[in-house]
Amino acid sequence: MPARLPTFDDILAARRRLGSLACLTPLIEHPALNAAAGGRVLLKAENLQRVGAFKFRGAYNKIAQLHKAAYPGGVVACSSGNHAQGVAAAATLRGLKSMIVMPSDAPRIKVERTKGFGGEVVSYDRVKEDRDAIAQRICEERNAALIHPFDDPDVIAGQGTAGLEMMEQAAALGAVPDIVLVGASGGGLVSGVSIAVKEKNPSAEIYSVEPAGFDDLARSLQHGRREKNAQMAGSICDALLAATPGELTFEIARRNLAGGLSVTDEEARTAVRFAFEELKLVVEPGGAVSLAAILAGKIPLEGRTVAALLTGGNIDPALFADIIQERRRAA
Amino acid sequence: MPARLPTFDDILAARRRLGSLACLTPLIEHPALNAAAGGRVLLKAENLQRVGAFKFRGAYNKIAQLHKAAYPGGVVACSSGNHAQGVAAAATLRGLKSMIVMPSDAPRIKVERTKGFGGEVVSYDRVKEDRDAIAQRICEERNAALIHPFDDPDVIAGQGTAGLEMMEQAAALGAVPDIVLVGASGGGLVSGVSIAVKEKNPSAEIYSVEPAGFDDLARSLQHGRREKNAQMAGSICDALLAATPGELTFEIARRNLAGGLSVTDEEARTAVRFAFEELKLVVEPGGAVSLAAILAGKIPLEGRTVAALLTGGNIDPALFADIIQERRRAA
Repeated sequence: MPARLPTFDDILAARRRLGSLACLTPLIEHPALNAAAGGRVLLKAENLQRVGAFKFRGAYNKIAQLHKAAYPGGVVACSSGNHAQGVAAAATLRGLKSMIVMPSDAPRIKVERTKGFGGEVVSYDRVKEDRDAIAQRICEERNAALIHPFDDPDVIAGQGTAGLEMMEQAAALGAVPDIVLVGASGGGLVSGVSIAVKEKNPSAEIYSVEPAGFDDLARSLQHGRREKNAQMAGSICDALLAATPGELTFEIARRNLAGGLSVTDEEARTAVRFAFEELKLVVEPGGAVSLAAILAGKIPLEGRTVAALLTGGNIDPALFADIIQERRRAA
Repeated sequence: MPARLPTFDDILAARRRLGSLACLTPLIEHPALNAAAGGRVLLKAENLQRVGAFKFRGAYNKIAQLHKAAYPGGVVACSSGNHAQGVAAAATLRGLKSMIVMPSDAPRIKVERTKGFGGEVVSYDRVKEDRDAIAQRICEERNAALIHPFDDPDVIAGQGTAGLEMMEQAAALGAVPDIVLVGASGGGLVSGVSIAVKEKNPSAEIYSVEPAGFDDLARSLQHGRREKNAQMAGSICDALLAATPGELTFEIARRNLAGGLSVTDEEARTAVRFAFEELKLVVEPGGAVSLAAILAGKIPLEGRTVAALLTGGNIDPALFADIIQERRRAA
């Protein structure tokens, strides 16, 4: 292993480090969702987190531990999405510069938001250039630190704070989740959350949820080795397209997860629409896969208590408009 | 006065009656909103309430106190919006029938949702027929009880539970709101909330927020007598078009409110868009007027703590799609 695995104590330390900078996002229970699920559902609404996604937690926990003097150039991240915004916001709060390497065809709203959080956006050509090489070169030229989106113990521990809060908030409601559902791309969130969940309820069954066709973690868990997706693009869940699980995240997931689920684009769209119509929450497709798994009945919930993370809400307005008006058009 | 004024004890009793049937909606603090406001803002998210609006609280508190045997025909309400859904859901939970008198041109989504909560929808012609007369006739023919949308002590006490929760949740964060902003139509919510707020912090300044041109409560407070709006339609805030404050609600507001604010359609749209982009919440225009007042700087917030209620999220998908895409079109 290239680095130590994070522990529950690392999550507690991450929470102290985050203090009140991360929002204590609500754990939401709604009768319309319980009725649709046939069980008790508790949603940890990380779409309501600072920057609109859980990513702030891990980015901040990582960046807060950097020695500023060692990285006068600040931090660098490759991301066209929520990690970009999390790193930019965290770096700004720590008084560090951030350079975010984004494809030149990234959605304008994500570029604008990243700049709004204080990030300097470095564009590259998705077809002709290698973003990792660009990021590496910036790190060397400017003495900057690369912030990996998931395969880093500090990032994983930071994301784990969402799971710790979720279990404590459930306990305050007198609930102990039997099943925990977490969307996964590289697996930083689900692995971090799994450490907190297993500490609080060792018998909880934890499942990752991925887009169909991008279920590298599910297949990796099934076969006991890190597998890759055959494709790199083509899902509505743009936040969940990592090619393969991280080394650390897979090692943790292998120990803690009961398995991996997947949902289709159509199921993700249904979940986004349900969140709009019934829950009054804005969730992006990749942020809604755990809800999608519940609504699509991917796992029996009768009489069970399930906790699920809504991971982000940074959706393009045109796509959101399209999804919420779909039922009307069909009718 | 036609009926006694509700007290803080009535709100405590309403909370016991509601039990866990009403969602304990979150009090949300978000750095993007604090930055925009220049003060500390706590949002009580009643758009996340059962039926998508605070109205369930008052309707249930009223209906739960009816003697079923006296009203074999169940309950009747006149509403094309959130009161309709609150009454239908509350009646169904109490095992009572509900007849909701709605204009024949009411948005299909609201008709469908009302039916979904178990309500029987009675259509009328907005131009040719008198809805109050229709409701009265149904009550007499079927031995049913009319549920007033705001001017009823039990309804007011039920809505007040949202204010009680808000003050308790603020206290748990170590915050005491200096300013409280509540959207108003007939004034049931703001009057009920004001009773709870004044109990917890007598020096808090409470303001109603209404659509410009429909600021009957603001003008009534200013002139010391119940005033009417000159117009009955023509605001994007379709939930806030009552013609005049109730007798009870005005009497309470007169005692507890510091004044009334108003916002334009454009300011309400900006608030709906801000909630989508930054807070990841779905709010209807009439549900967003308190947020609109904050964002439009209607009241100085520098260094103050303000608590504001988001009152509902039942917005037509086409209108929501239009509002969230406006900035893009303008750019």
